Amino acid sequence: MKLCWIHPTTANDALAPLWQKLDAAVRPALHPSTELEFRFLPKSGNFVRSAYAEHINSVHIVEAALKAEADGFDGIFLGCWNDPLWEAREVLSVPVGSVSEQSMLAALAMGKRLAVVTVSQKTTVAIENDLLAYGLRDRAIVRPVRTILPESDAELLLGAVSDPYAAFIPRVEEVAKACIADGADVILIGCAYYGPLLRMAGYTEVPGTGVPVVDSSTVALKYLEAMTDIAMKLGTVKSTRLQLRAPPREALDQARRSLSLI
Amino acid sequence: MKLCWIHPTTANDALAPLWQKLDAAVRPALHPSTELEFRFLPKSGNFVRSAYAEHINSVHIVEAALKAEADGFDGIFLGCWNDPLWEAREVLSVPVGSVSEQSMLAALAMGKRLAVVTVSQKTTVAIENDLLAYGLRDRAIVRPVRTILPESDAELLLGAVSDPYAAFIPRVEEVAKACIADGADVILIGCAYYGPLLRMAGYTEVPGTGVPVVDSSTVALKYLEAMTDIAMKLGTVKSTRLQLRAPPREALDQARRSLSLI
Amino acid sequence: MKLCWIHPTTANDALAPLWQKLDAAVRPALHPSTELEFRFLPKSGNFVRSAYAEHINSVHIVEAALKAEADGFDGIFLGCWNDPLWEAREVLSVPVGSVSEQSMLAALAMGKRLAVVTVSQKTTVAIENDLLAYGLRDRAIVRPVRTILPESDAELLLGAVSDPYAAFIPRVEEVAKACIADGADVILIGCAYYGPLLRMAGYTEVPGTGVPVVDSSTVALKYLEAMTDIAMKLGTVKSTRLQLRAPPREALDQARRSLSLI
Amino acid sequence: MKLCWIHPTTANDALAPLWQKLDAAVRPALHPSTELEFRFLPKSGNFVRSAYAEHINSVHIVEAALKAEADGFDGIFLGCWNDPLWEAREVLSVPVGSVSEQSMLAALAMGKRLAVVTVSQKTTVAIENDLLAYGLRDRAIVRPVRTILPESDAELLLGAVSDPYAAFIPRVEEVAKACIADGADVILIGCAYYGPLLRMAGYTEVPGTGVPVVDSSTVALKYLEAMTDIAMKLGTVKSTRLQLRAPPREALDQARRSLSLI
Amino acid sequence: MKLCWIHPTTANDALAPLWQKLDAAVRPALHPSTELEFRFLPKSGNFVRSAYAEHINSVHIVEAALKAEADGFDGIFLGCWNDPLWEAREVLSVPVGSVSEQSMLAALAMGKRLAVVTVSQKTTVAIENDLLAYGLRDRAIVRPVRTILPESDAELLLGAVSDPYAAFIPRVEEVAKACIADGADVILIGCAYYGPLLRMAGYTEVPGTGVPVVDSSTVALKYLEAMTDIAMKLGTVKSTRLQLRAPPREALDQARRSLSLI
Amino acid sequence: MKLCWIHPTTANDALAPLWQKLDAAVRPALHPSTELEFRFLPKSGNFVRSAYAEHINSVHIVEAALKAEADGFDGIFLGCWNDPLWEAREVLSVPVGSVSEQSMLAALAMGKRLAVVTVSQKTTVAIENDLLAYGLRDRAIVRPVRTILPESDAELLLGAVSDPYAAFIPRVEEVAKACIADGADVILIGCAYYGPLLRMAGYTEVPGTGVPVVDSSTVALKYLEAMTDIAMKLGTVKSTRLQLRAPPREALDQARRSLSLI
Repeated sequence: MKLCWIHPTTANDALAPLWQKLDAAVRPALHPSTELEFRFLPKSGNFVRSAYAEHINSVHIVEAALKAEADGFDGIFLGCWNDPLWEAREVLSVPVGSVSEQSMLAALAMGKRLAVVTVSQKTTVAIENDLLAYGLRDRAIVRPVRTILPESDAELLLGAVSDPYAAFIPRVEEVAKACIADGADVILIGCAYYGPLLRMAGYTEVPGTGVPVVDSSTVALKYLEAMTDIAMKLGTVKSTRLQLRAPPREALDQARRSLSLI
Repeated sequence: MKLCWIHPTTANDALAPLWQKLDAAVRPALHPSTELEFRFLPKSGNFVRSAYAEHINSVHIVEAALKAEADGFDGIFLGCWNDPLWEAREVLSVPVGSVSEQSMLAALAMGKRLAVVTVSQKTTVAIENDLLAYGLRDRAIVRPVRTILPESDAELLLGAVSDPYAAFIPRVEEVAKACIADGADVILIGCAYYGPLLRMAGYTEVPGTGVPVVDSSTVALKYLEAMTDIAMKLGTVKSTRLQLRAPPREALDQARRSLSLI
Repeated sequence: MKLCWIHPTTANDALAPLWQKLDAAVRPALHPSTELEFRFLPKSGNFVRSAYAEHINSVHIVEAALKAEADGFDGIFLGCWNDPLWEAREVLSVPVGSVSEQSMLAALAMGKRLAVVTVSQKTTVAIENDLLAYGLRDRAIVRPVRTILPESDAELLLGAVSDPYAAFIPRVEEVAKACIADGADVILIGCAYYGPLLRMAGYTEVPGTGVPVVDSSTVALKYLEAMTDIAMKLGTVKSTRLQLRAPPREALDQARRSLSLI
Repeated sequence: MKLCWIHPTTANDALAPLWQKLDAAVRPALHPSTELEFRFLPKSGNFVRSAYAEHINSVHIVEAALKAEADGFDGIFLGCWNDPLWEAREVLSVPVGSVSEQSMLAALAMGKRLAVVTVSQKTTVAIENDLLAYGLRDRAIVRPVRTILPESDAELLLGAVSDPYAAFIPRVEEVAKACIADGADVILIGCAYYGPLLRMAGYTEVPGTGVPVVDSSTVALKYLEAMTDIAMKLGTVKSTRLQLRAPPREALDQARRSLSLI
Repeated sequence: MKLCWIHPTTANDALAPLWQKLDAAVRPALHPSTELEFRFLPKSGNFVRSAYAEHINSVHIVEAALKAEADGFDGIFLGCWNDPLWEAREVLSVPVGSVSEQSMLAALAMGKRLAVVTVSQKTTVAIENDLLAYGLRDRAIVRPVRTILPESDAELLLGAVSDPYAAFIPRVEEVAKACIADGADVILIGCAYYGPLLRMAGYTEVPGTGVPVVDSSTVALKYLEAMTDIAMKLGTVKSTRLQLRAPPREALDQARRSLSLI
Repeated sequence: MKLCWIHPTTANDALAPLWQKLDAAVRPALHPSTELEFRFLPKSGNFVRSAYAEHINSVHIVEAALKAEADGFDGIFLGCWNDPLWEAREVLSVPVGSVSEQSMLAALAMGKRLAVVTVSQKTTVAIENDLLAYGLRDRAIVRPVRTILPESDAELLLGAVSDPYAAFIPRVEEVAKACIADGADVILIGCAYYGPLLRMAGYTEVPGTGVPVVDSSTVALKYLEAMTDIAMKLGTVKSTRLQLRAPPREALDQARRSLSLI
C-alpha cells in the first residue's frame, strides 16, 4: 500500500527539523508494508489564516491529490485541518482521509465528548465548521474548538520540535483544562504537526485527568491506512451517489482549465 | 447606491434572451436610485455540476467580488446558489448577499417551513449544505432541497425564457407538490434564473395551495439592497471578529498570488 | 410606501425626549419616499413584565395593526421585542415586521453566533422563546438572551436619551463581554428604544472586540421596508397555507367581539 | 381535592349530549375524593380556527383560571389543546395542567415516538408549536401532528357522541395508520372531546398494530390530579424563577384593566 | 392499588434509620388506598459505580420487577436512578416507573430548564445518558447532570438521615447554584434517598432563588401512582409495538435460564 | 496482533456452513500478521429478540470480553449489532470494537447519509437507539434503521450461505431502495453475518444507484484492527475519565459475583 501525505504548504527548509521529526514520529506507526511519501505543494499561500486564503490553498491541495492518485497512490492523506476533504473525495476514486475527520471519528470511540485545541482563532472557525458539517455537535463540548493564546507561529513550532514543554505545552494545557471543566474527556490536537511532537515528547494525557491528548495526525493516518486496506481488499471506497459522485473528467477539466491548473 | 450582480459564468451570447429578460425582471424591483450592473466572470467553469468544480469557480467569483468592491460598488450580489458567501464576506468590507442566504432569510418571514426546488441533483447537495450551515434545518422540511427531473439544461432554460409553462413549470410543480405534502408552506426556486422567469410569467403560487413560489433572486437582491442601505446609513456591515475578520491584505495577496490571481 | 411603527404602550408625555430622539434616529435611515408614522396604543398594560400581561398587551398590538392596515399602511412594524408577530401576520395581508425577528435575521448575515442583551429577566424569557420558535438556536450562544443588571427602568431610559454612557452602557458592556467570551460575534440590543440611542451616541461596537452592537430597531425597520417593497413590486407577502392563513373575517370578528374589541 | 375543568367555549346546549357523555367518561377515572367541576367561559370566540382568535380566547381561559383559583380550586385543567398553559401557570399558584402537555408527558412513558391526530389544519399548527416549545421533537415522528380530513365540525362531533364508528373513527384510523408507518407507536387524540368518546366506545388501539389510541383528556386530567396531590402533600408546585415567576398582582391587574377584564 | 418499590441493593441493616425515614417520608404522600411495599434485592452489586456493574445489577432489578408483577402488584417503582427502565417496561404488563423518567417529566411541568444534582461522577454519566435517551436535552442546561464533591458515601448518607444541613446540603447547594447560574430553574435531586431526606428537613428550595429542590423519589412515585390508576381505570398502559412489545415468555425464559435466573 | 471475535451465541453446529463462510470472508481482509480467533459464548439466550433478553445476553458478551483480554488478546470485537459496547469498553483496557459503532463511523467517511437495513423489527429499535446515543442522527435518514420483511430466521440465513440472491437479497433491496428514496447514500447491513455473505456473493451496491451495500462486519473489524494497532504503537486507547473509567476490579467483581459470574 502506498500512501501520500500532502502538506498544505510549499517546502520550507527552515523547518527541516520538523519534517525529520514528523517522519520519525509517523512512519513507525504504519504497517511495515505501507509506503508513505510526504509531498509539499508546488504553490501555496503557506498558512494565511483566512477562509478565502484557505479556499485558494484548497485548490492546490486537491490538485496535489489528483496528481497523487494519478501517480499510483492507494490512499491520500490531507495533512492539515484546513482541508478540502469533500471536494477531494468527490473527484478521487481512492480513499481520502483528513486529520480532521479521521481523528474526530477515532475520538468518538475513545470517549464521550471531544474538544479540539488548535493554534489560532481563525482555525477554530474552520474546524468548528467541519465538526458541524460532520454532524458531530452532540459528541463535543460547547465551543468545541479553542485556540492557544498567544497563537502559534513559526518560532513556537520550531521550538516545540526540540522541547514542547518549554512554551507550547503550558499553553495547550491551560486550554485543555478549561475544555475538561466543560465536559471534554478526549482532547484532539488541532494541528497536524504539534500532535506528533507532543506524543514523541511523551505528553499523551492532560496530567492527572485521565483525558488523552490525541496525536490526531498519526491516528488519522492510521484510519486512512485502514480505509485504504478496505478499499484494496473489499473494494468498498465511497458512495457514488449525489455528494461524492465524481463529475465527468472532461467537465471537471473545463473548470480546472479556468484556473490554468491543467 | 451601486450594486453589482456577479454572474457565475462567462458571458454567453447564446443566452442573450435570458440576460435581457433577467434585466427586465429585476431592475424595476429596485429603488429608482439604486444602480445595478450585471457582470460576467472573465473565466469560469460554467456550470460544471461538481463540488470541486464549484470550489474552483468560487475563486473566480470572490475575485470578481473583490474587483467590484475596488470599483466602488456599495453592495455585491453573488448571483448563483453555488456561492462562496462566507469567503467573500470575510474579505470584503461592503455587504455581500447571495441568492441562497438572503432568500432563505426572507422565506423565514413568509411561512414556517421552506423547501427549495432546484435544477440538478448536485445542486441539491450544495444548497442543503448551505441550509445546514445557516442553521436553518428546523425551518425546512425533510430533504429540504429537491431537484426537478429530468435536470435542467441550456435548452430547458432558453425555452423557459419564452414559455416556462411548456416544460419547466410542470417539472417544478410536481416536486413542489411533494414538498407541500411533506409540510412546506414556502417554495424557493433554487436557481438564480428560473425564479425571475417564473414571476414574469405570473407563476407565483403553487396553484390551489396558498404556497408562494418565490423568485429567490429578486427577493434576495432586495434584501441586499436593504443591507447596503443599512451599511451606508447606519455603518453596520458585519462582525469583524473570528469568522468574518478579514486577513491583512498582504497576507491574502500572498495566497492569491499562488494561483496567479494577481 | 407608508409604514406604521406601533408602540407597545399608550402615549407617555414624560418620555417626550425619547420619542423625539427615536424619530430623529430612525427616520433618516429610511428611503426618502418612505413615510413613517409612530402610533401609540389607545390602551395598554404599559410594560408589565409578565407573560400573561404581555399576552394581554399583544391583543392591543394586533388590534392596532389591524387598524393600521385598514388605514392604508403598506407595512406594519411591531415596535417591541414582546410582540404578537405570528398572530398579526396571520390576520394581516400586508407585511408585518418585528424588532425581534427582523433583527435576528439581519444578524445571521452579519456574523456566526448572535446574542441579545436585553433589559429585564422576564424579557430574556420572551426573547429566548422567540429565538427558539424561529429555529435559530444553532446560530446563537448558550443562554443567548441575557439581561443587564440592575434591570432597566424609566429613569435609566430617560437618562440614556441624553447620555447613555453614564449608566446604561457600562451595564450593557459587562453583559456583552460575557456573551463574547461564550462565542458571540454579534450583539443585538434587546429593547426597541436603547438600540437607536446607542447608535446615536456612537456606541456601535463593543470596544476592542470587532463585535457590532446592533441598533436592532432601525435595522429591523429597514428589513420591513424591504419586505414591503417586495410586496408592492413583486406581490410576494406570505404563505396563506396553514400557519399564516387568515381566518374568515367574520369568524375572527366573532372572537374579537368576545373581548369587545369591535 | 377540587379540580376545575375549564371549557374553551361558552355553554352550548345543543351539545348537551356531549357534556353528559364527557362527564360520564371522565369522572369515574378520578379518585373518589376528587371533586371535579366543569366550567364554561362566560365569553368566547367558540372555536374560531385562527392563531389570533385563539390568542384572544386564551385571555378568557386565563381569566377563568384566575377565578377558579380564587374560588378555591386546588388544580386547574385547561380543557382544550389550544391553551394558554405558560401564561396561566405563571400567574397562578396552584397546579395548572393542559390536555396537551400532560398527555404528551404521559405518552413519553408509554412508547418511543408519539403522534397527535387532531381535527383541523389550524390545530395542527398550534399543537406542533406546543410540542416544539416543550422540546419533545425527538420523541415524535416527522410532521408529528396531523389532521383528519374532512375537518371536524359540530355535526361530526355530535354524531360521535352516539356512534364514533360511523364517521369519525374511519377518518382517524386513516391518519393514525400513516403515522404508524412513519414510526409512531403512541397516538394521542388531539381534541379534548373525541378522546373520551373513543375510549367509551372501546376504541383504544389502532386495530392490529399494538399502538394505543390515548384518551388524552382523561389521561391528562389524571396527571393533573397527581400534580395537585403533590402540591397539597409535598408543597411542590413550580419554579418561581424567571419564566413562571408571577408578576406583582397590582402590576398584572394594570394590564388586565386595559382589556376591562377587571 | 398495590405498588412495589424495588431497592437497587440487598437489605442493609446498618442503614435501618434510612429505611425508616424513607418510609415515613414517602408513605403519607400516597393515597390512603394505595399500598406500598419496599423490597430489597436478594442479590446485588450494591452500588458499584460502573456502567457494567450497574448493567449486572439491572438484571437483579428486572427480575425483582417480574417477581413483583407475578405477586400481584399493580405498579412497579424502580427505586434508583440507575435503572433498567426500558427493559422492565418491555417485559412487564403493568406500569413501570422510575425515579429518573417520572421526576424529569414532572420537572417539565414545573419550569423551563432542569438540572440534576447527583452523588457521584459515574452517576452523572448514567443520568445524562438517560436524559438524552428521553429526548429532553433542550429542556435541560448544558452539562445537565452534576455531582456533589466529595462524592457521597455511606457516612454522608447516614449523617443526612439525622441532619442533612451539616454536610450534605452545603455540597448540594454549591452545585445547585452553579446550575442556576447556567440557567436551571428546577433542581432534581439525583439520588433516590437524599430527595426525601431533604424534603423532610424542609429544604425544598435553593434559598433565595425561587428554584425548587425536588424530592424526585416521592414525586416520581406519585406519577407512578397516577400511571397505575390510569392503567386500572382506563386500561391504557403502554404501546405493544416495537420497543415495548414483550417477547414470548418462553423465548425470554430461554435467555433468563442462560444466567440461571429461573 | 491478536483479535478476538466474540459471537453473541453459543456454538451451533447446524450453522457450520455459515461459520466456514464467515471465516473465509473475513480472515483474508486482515493483515497477514493479524491473528483472528472466533469464540462462541459458553451460555447465551441465542437471539431472543427482546431488549431484556439482549441485556442478559450482554452480560455473557462482556464476560467473554473480559476473558479474552485476560487470555492476551490485543483487541476485542463484539460480533453482533446487539452489543454492550460501552460496558465492555469501560471495564477493558484494550480496544473494543463493535459492528455497529465501527461500521457507522466508517460509513461517515463513505457518504453523507447512512441507513441500516437489518433483520427484525426488534433489532431496528436497538440499532436506532445506538445510533442516537452515538450522536449520529444528522448523518442518517429519517427512520434510519429498517427491517426486511418477513424477518430473518435460521432458514433464511442458512439459505443465504449458498445463495443470497434467492431470497435474502430481494428483501434487502426493497428496503434499501426505500432508504435511498429518503436520501440514503450508504447502506449498512444490520447483521453481522449477512454482510460478509453479500460481499462474497458480489452484492456490494444497490444496482444502478451508486449506493454501496457495506459489509459492516468486515469493515468494522478492519477499523478495530486499526484501533488496536494504534493502541499497540501509540499507546492511545481510550479516555479514563468519567464514562469509560474502569471501576476498581474488586468492586466490579463484587457485582459480578452477585450473578455468579466468577
